[in-house]
Amino acid sequence: MKPPLKIAIAGLGTVGTGVAQLLARNGDVIARRAGRQIELRAILERDRKRDRKVDLSKPKWHGGPRDLAADSGVEAVVELIGGTEGVALDLVKAALSAGKHVVTANKAMLAHHGNELADLAAKNGVALAFEAAVAGGIPILKALREGLAANTINRVYGILNGTCNYILTQMRDSRRDFGDVLKEAQKLGYAEKDPGFDIDGVDTAHKIAILAAVAFGGRVDFKGVFVEGIRHVSALDIEFAEELGYRIKLLGLARLTADGLEQRVHPCMVPAATPIAHVEGVFNAVVVEGDFVGRVMLEGRGAGAEPTASAVVADLIDIACGRAGPGFRIPAARHKTAPMARHRGAYYLRLMVLDRPGVIADIAAALRDEQVSMEQMIQRGRGPAGEAVPVVITTHETVEDSMRRALGRISRLKTVREKPRLIRVETL
Amino acid sequence: MKPPLKIAIAGLGTVGTGVAQLLARNGDVIARRAGRQIELRAILERDRKRDRKVDLSKPKWHGGPRDLAADSGVEAVVELIGGTEGVALDLVKAALSAGKHVVTANKAMLAHHGNELADLAAKNGVALAFEAAVAGGIPILKALREGLAANTINRVYGILNGTCNYILTQMRDSRRDFGDVLKEAQKLGYAEKDPGFDIDGVDTAHKIAILAAVAFGGRVDFKGVFVEGIRHVSALDIEFAEELGYRIKLLGLARLTADGLEQRVHPCMVPAATPIAHVEGVFNAVVVEGDFVGRVMLEGRGAGAEPTASAVVADLIDIACGRAGPGFRIPAARHKTAPMARHRGAYYLRLMVLDRPGVIADIAAALRDEQVSMEQMIQRGRGPAGEAVPVVITTHETVEDSMRRALGRISRLKTVREKPRLIRVETL
Repeated sequence: MKPPLKIAIAGLGTVGTGVAQLLARNGDVIARRAGRQIELRAILERDRKRDRKVDLSKPKWHGGPRDLAADSGVEAVVELIGGTEGVALDLVKAALSAGKHVVTANKAMLAHHGNELADLAAKNGVALAFEAAVAGGIPILKALREGLAANTINRVYGILNGTCNYILTQMRDSRRDFGDVLKEAQKLGYAEKDPGFDIDGVDTAHKIAILAAVAFGGRVDFKGVFVEGIRHVSALDIEFAEELGYRIKLLGLARLTADGLEQRVHPCMVPAATPIAHVEGVFNAVVVEGDFVGRVMLEGRGAGAEPTASAVVADLIDIACGRAGPGFRIPAARHKTAPMARHRGAYYLRLMVLDRPGVIADIAAALRDEQVSMEQMIQRGRGPAGEAVPVVITTHETVEDSMRRALGRISRLKTVREKPRLIRVETL
Repeated sequence: MKPPLKIAIAGLGTVGTGVAQLLARNGDVIARRAGRQIELRAILERDRKRDRKVDLSKPKWHGGPRDLAADSGVEAVVELIGGTEGVALDLVKAALSAGKHVVTANKAMLAHHGNELADLAAKNGVALAFEAAVAGGIPILKALREGLAANTINRVYGILNGTCNYILTQMRDSRRDFGDVLKEAQKLGYAEKDPGFDIDGVDTAHKIAILAAVAFGGRVDFKGVFVEGIRHVSALDIEFAEELGYRIKLLGLARLTADGLEQRVHPCMVPAATPIAHVEGVFNAVVVEGDFVGRVMLEGRGAGAEPTASAVVADLIDIACGRAGPGFRIPAARHKTAPMARHRGAYYLRLMVLDRPGVIADIAAALRDEQVSMEQMIQRGRGPAGEAVPVVITTHETVEDSMRRALGRISRLKTVREKPRLIRVETL
């Protein structure tokens, strides 16, 4: 057997601790699969006292990122500190520059600094691996890069944030509104006290930018991601979605269009009969559409110490076997950013209108004038005089820009009482 | 860029032709991902005249397997001839012995001769790769070996035969009986004229034996697979399954138990709320349960020229990158075969009984005497005198052997008119 791969873990929060536990518990399996041991030689963590239910007496505890990067007894550094910049970024740069492989689960850092780090890894001839950064334990990056490598990828999309999927699932199951369910999710620990990062779609945007870079051989283009969260999704929209044969999911989507690379994060109406519509609760799923393989979906746990540790150690095994590459792997192609205004798709629109003669005619005229073609309309019941009732419209495929102009006109109608709700309909 | 990987295709049926087309159509993408070209240098195929919609004028056409194996201009042979023995096996042995890598989609050959071939590959220091042999385009072997390599695998199971899943899906959707739907599937080309290989579970058994070997680091043990097909599944059982909150799927399952490696293929009652219950039509899916990652499911097309070609070429890319190994990869551990008689699980039982006093008491007594504990019983309606009515019983977890003994006693009751139907209930 080859000599062990000597590694360090930086950051002993839940995931870092999970990695240490996994290495201890499955050491034999890992050694058989990697053809060598993976040995934890060093640790970077301030809190040395907490009981982590794993023997950490042997590794050397370092005081700062530069000490660790300079430790000649370490070949690969696992960065689990987190944060877009700061200690995490300093450490990764120093480690790569010192010729050490890096494994990280840090999607924010990769979304913002991934290109620079990939270049640094390539320059130093070391691996930069980050399976754990997208969809937790699901081996989606390996599938895109290797298992499906024979395909031209047409589109990649997924449910990439368990918090949002949990909230949307709960809203549907219990017919409650967003605010209620969010509070409950916070109580249960499924949502952060400050939930914006998840529910405003930022976390999903980080992940789709990384997925797109891997799928389309480009550079990470986080700024090119259109982002819209789930705060505006209401119980009423979920009800209408069901009536129309859809479910509402927060998706990250990326595809190459004639206009360039389109990357979007927003709530989507997905047909109830598609596999991704059945991915519920905190589970994540990613769908890859390849020109030969067709549609492949991978589903599993997208967060949590143990699934994330599974992905981190898979990267370490790849490094131990000499299988890991320097980042986005495929020589980078630069794609233009496709502007969201030119996105083509179908739309769901919910308006709250006063039930008066001529209302529908005005709305229909606004859509017609902007060349938006209606597919169906639901006007449910009659409201008491002066009270607004919902009108739901779905459209045929149209251009985002036209839709937005039509929406602007509709918003200004006196009979339209609330801000119109728009949810994009995806053909999957 | 490194010099091209020089390959041969043996067998230009639909899949072989698909591979040639894929190499031609996606040559650029493949070269970028593999870091080198993959060049089709030789072909083994008797029918040279058929129009295959791809330029095959450059490769050398060989007359027989030994010529091809001796061709020094070929580094890797893609075997797509098919058949457990014969030309396919001769070719693979000769190619491996001549120091050529082999990629194959031939699950029958691997199920019967996989151990010998893996040893031969290892001895000659070449790759034996077979991603396409299990679940077509779904990169499940790579996921098991690499993406989920950090895990101790607890169980692996899947829908591995599109023909069976299509038939069961159609039976449920259209409430028709097995024979009807099979005939239609044959007309549509989803089932063979001689369908036994698929519907009797043999094909699924080949695949689960390969999956089990990869998941549990063992040798292929095809003879150890318990196999039962779907011929006996009736529309009535599908109806009861729905009433009980289940769907009926033909699964291949493997897990390590205290008794050894348990490998089974049979129709299963799977809870309707599980992801695998929603895998419909010709789609395949495989679920891996790992100790850290939890449950991961991969779903996609399990057959067809294009998805299979996707998997074959992924293996070629791995070989081109030096990432592929000699077969089952993990040094083989030998597991005992767990006898089916000692399988523990829950059961669904449907009896057709004469509606007379004492019938249920007799049945209940037979179960009790064999220590089988009932979970629920459905007795629907009353039949006209002399006509049998269905009685459905589900049990708590029990031992297969006890269940079979109870079933034997029940079959011999005078009031039980047809052969009792037994379907195993899976906890997923």
